[in-house]
Amino acid sequence: MFIILYYDVNEKRCSKMLKKCRAYLQWVQNSVFEGNLTESQLKRLISDLAKIINEEEGDSLIIYKFESQRYTDRIVVGKDKKTDINFI
Amino acid sequence: MFIILYYDVNEKRCSKMLKKCRAYLQWVQNSVFEGNLTESQLKRLISDLAKIINEEEGDSLIIYKFESQRYTDRIVVGKDKKTDINFI
Repeated sequence: MFIILYYDVNEKRCSKMLKKCRAYLQWVQNSVFEGNLTESQLKRLISDLAKIINEEEGDSLIIYKFESQRYTDRIVVGKDKKTDINFI
Repeated sequence: MFIILYYDVNEKRCSKMLKKCRAYLQWVQNSVFEGNLTESQLKRLISDLAKIINEEEGDSLIIYKFESQRYTDRIVVGKDKKTDINFI
């Protein structure tokens, strides 16, 4: 299934988050990722990221999980920094 | 319809983008917004933002437009900085 993921974490945790997300998804822009994952890959990614983030310090991770992409359009204005797009 | 919007623009254009997006959508985290818009509101927002961004300098604006939210789940780990969520 298609995934959009974005996080807002304390600067000292950014590189760990970036490294982990890059192993699963495509970088789109600062702290925003997109890509296709299986249910088990998504579970593993969430559990890995949950070990990194610190809720008390206000860290936030938001994931949109698309069962189907039929009802969603992706509009790009300007440069699409995500090259190998497999959404359309 | 429900909208997710994120942008990656040159720093000198950030405050203009923030101000314009805040007039239409809810701030979720740095350069990421969510909310419900009509088709005409979305058209106006896109045209306003298109006047701000500069593609030659690598600025990027990505919008996901949801005709229906039935096929999408929103997962939050840590803090949800978007308080008045009307997605669920």
